[in-house]
Amino acid sequence: MGMNMVSIILKKKAGEVLTTEEIRFVAQGAAKNTLPPEQLSAWLMAVCWRGMDDRETADLTLAMAYSGDVVDLSAIPGVCVDKHSTGGVGDTTTLVLVPLVAACGAPVAKMSGRALGHTGGTLDKLESIPGMRIYLDQAAFIDQVRRVGCAVVGQTQSLAPADKLLYALRDVTGTVDSLPLIASSIVSKKLAAGSGAIVLDVKTGNGALMPTLDASVALARAMVRIGKLAGKPTLALVTGMEEPLGSHVGNALEVKEAIDILAGRAAGPLLRVSLALGSQMLVAAGKAADLVQAEILLQKALASGAGLAKLRDMIAAQGGDPRVTEDVSLLPRARHLSPVPAERDGYVDHMDTVAIGRAAQLLGAGRETKEQAIDTAVGLVMHKRIGEAVAKGEPVATLHANDPALARQAAAVLARAVTIGGAQTAPPPLIHAIIMPDTEEYFT
Amino acid sequence: MGMNMVSIILKKKAGEVLTTEEIRFVAQGAAKNTLPPEQLSAWLMAVCWRGMDDRETADLTLAMAYSGDVVDLSAIPGVCVDKHSTGGVGDTTTLVLVPLVAACGAPVAKMSGRALGHTGGTLDKLESIPGMRIYLDQAAFIDQVRRVGCAVVGQTQSLAPADKLLYALRDVTGTVDSLPLIASSIVSKKLAAGSGAIVLDVKTGNGALMPTLDASVALARAMVRIGKLAGKPTLALVTGMEEPLGSHVGNALEVKEAIDILAGRAAGPLLRVSLALGSQMLVAAGKAADLVQAEILLQKALASGAGLAKLRDMIAAQGGDPRVTEDVSLLPRARHLSPVPAERDGYVDHMDTVAIGRAAQLLGAGRETKEQAIDTAVGLVMHKRIGEAVAKGEPVATLHANDPALARQAAAVLARAVTIGGAQTAPPPLIHAIIMPDTEEYFT
Repeated sequence: MGMNMVSIILKKKAGEVLTTEEIRFVAQGAAKNTLPPEQLSAWLMAVCWRGMDDRETADLTLAMAYSGDVVDLSAIPGVCVDKHSTGGVGDTTTLVLVPLVAACGAPVAKMSGRALGHTGGTLDKLESIPGMRIYLDQAAFIDQVRRVGCAVVGQTQSLAPADKLLYALRDVTGTVDSLPLIASSIVSKKLAAGSGAIVLDVKTGNGALMPTLDASVALARAMVRIGKLAGKPTLALVTGMEEPLGSHVGNALEVKEAIDILAGRAAGPLLRVSLALGSQMLVAAGKAADLVQAEILLQKALASGAGLAKLRDMIAAQGGDPRVTEDVSLLPRARHLSPVPAERDGYVDHMDTVAIGRAAQLLGAGRETKEQAIDTAVGLVMHKRIGEAVAKGEPVATLHANDPALARQAAAVLARAVTIGGAQTAPPPLIHAIIMPDTEEYFT
Repeated sequence: MGMNMVSIILKKKAGEVLTTEEIRFVAQGAAKNTLPPEQLSAWLMAVCWRGMDDRETADLTLAMAYSGDVVDLSAIPGVCVDKHSTGGVGDTTTLVLVPLVAACGAPVAKMSGRALGHTGGTLDKLESIPGMRIYLDQAAFIDQVRRVGCAVVGQTQSLAPADKLLYALRDVTGTVDSLPLIASSIVSKKLAAGSGAIVLDVKTGNGALMPTLDASVALARAMVRIGKLAGKPTLALVTGMEEPLGSHVGNALEVKEAIDILAGRAAGPLLRVSLALGSQMLVAAGKAADLVQAEILLQKALASGAGLAKLRDMIAAQGGDPRVTEDVSLLPRARHLSPVPAERDGYVDHMDTVAIGRAAQLLGAGRETKEQAIDTAVGLVMHKRIGEAVAKGEPVATLHANDPALARQAAAVLARAVTIGGAQTAPPPLIHAIIMPDTEEYFT
């Protein structure tokens, strides 16, 4: 009562700081549909214009987090640690680290998202596994984490409804790229998901939401500060996205790569980032005294096959065919494989990572709008990373397509996306920084 | 085709200049309801943020003006000159100058607006005249101007629908105070109304839309530039609104004051501004060689009673009771008259003009939202102007109320709105400037 949305818009438009009550009024209005979308979108644009300070951003995050149900994980023994990536290409750390972390005794009750634009989504990847269920009711979800140690599911509709509406509005009103809006949206979903601690993976580079290191660090800091103000232990790694993280891009293809890694048949940057994130999760869960011990535990779970076994159990618990973990040929496969040859001798010196994601999307692996269907079988496999030598005619990638016409288009996009030069460049950094509430470590 | 509203929003958000085609796309989307309000309001806020240059503003004005029907006044002999005021308190120049200008042989086919907030509206004033019709169909409107020489009516729904929708959106999304949006909204309605030339009255002072002289001059310049780019002769007077223009504030009360002026029983700043605007209209209509000759013609029409006769004919033509021009007691009258006494001896040295408008609104003379009903009988009469001496207990104003409780509230508002000091101040300037496309004249 007495609150007036026009005054709140005018206040933010004038560059003033909103009160906690005013921000709650906006979030509640979004959650309950009591504020018309035209007022919310004008407010969102005013926030893009004037920004929000830490207190406002934390207030918005909390108001959105508690605008609907909050998952109660108290029935799960131990500290559930959540992980969130700001999104990348070939970025399937969740499928690698969740089983490994769970195999080390830390429960993981994770809610994931869908592919959108050039980035993939864990839910779509999981749906490539025959029979896999990704929507569990709350009780089944918690029961599975208690029994198996981990579950990865879709977010229920009742979580953070204010974020849901504002996120959809931002998408159609050109108000996506505001640091406080991005940070509060991500953290609100994580708070509503109920975990006891949060490990964030903020990507940086030409395939990331935030392309520059400065912007990525700023986003990481903002989210870590919100976590602190919300009383939730939160830290962030800033990791590189100057090229696809794994070699496989596409849904079943990324599941295959995760299985290959857990089976010890593959390694590389995807495993390295998964171990870095997983180590932080183990420490946050109190299952390791420090990062060194955590990494040793994770390496053991990898070497012993305990991680792969955990993935198999999780797939089985969610109705999926667990045999995929022994036989990846049971995953959906595309009909046409076509190599994309290098146009010259030299070294790969740059990748347009968004374009690589777009090439996979073009084949049917991704979607532009939430309603679009996905073909989980298609995608592409990169054979080269930045800094690697390549001979003219040698394939830099192989497209996995079900439509030869789309494959031709994707091949053209991919060929343009990979630049080959005469001199060898160093591989791009993988882990740039660790951002914690009180300290920051930089490695690049 | 190919136009994308999100890209247009993002472009303006980034501070870029939109193309004519992009601005037309927005205006057409507003007119035809093909763009959702949330996108339009995000765009409006981005325009508040980044502004628009002259070309963009003229493009928006033209696109809105031609988004619906345009009145065809070609059947009326001579040049119809339109007049528009940015709105004030006790500002009833239309009722004074339209009959005078018409009596001098220049046809006036005028569309007016409603009261909103602290400002009055000509349509509500006219509706206080028993029987008066303010919605005529196009043919009747044009026929009346041909026969009588003037008509003042409500804008038909089919004019400038893009402006109608954007104006309503701005009202609820905190995007009113943007110079290009204000200027384009006003001029688009005037262009759609079909007149051959436009005389603008841009108010300045504490009761005006633009309180500072600089902002008022900027608005005047913007509108005159748009008129030039649209090929429509346009000029603007910047006139004072540091106190109510006339002494009467309220609908029937302002009609009474206009009649008193046309009958030669009253004069003062309202007449002076009406003559200044009317002179410009006569020159623009080619009925006078210069402003001096124009003023002489208007003074003659006033002295001869030709102006009052023209008002009587116009009222009769629109179904109103023409006897009000001889007997103002036929206008609606409030039941309770209550004086607001001065609290000390001294000189009136300041008026909070918005508060005076609000006091009249509180009594029922105005409305906060378009749906509210108005009591045309109520209002207030100011007995003092800035610089005039006042004795303690002497009434500075008389409230005309139908509800004694509201009268008490309004009396408190009014008493606070009039400041009495010990030293005599000069009356505030009445005409600050004349802004023409190529020259500007300043008088203060």
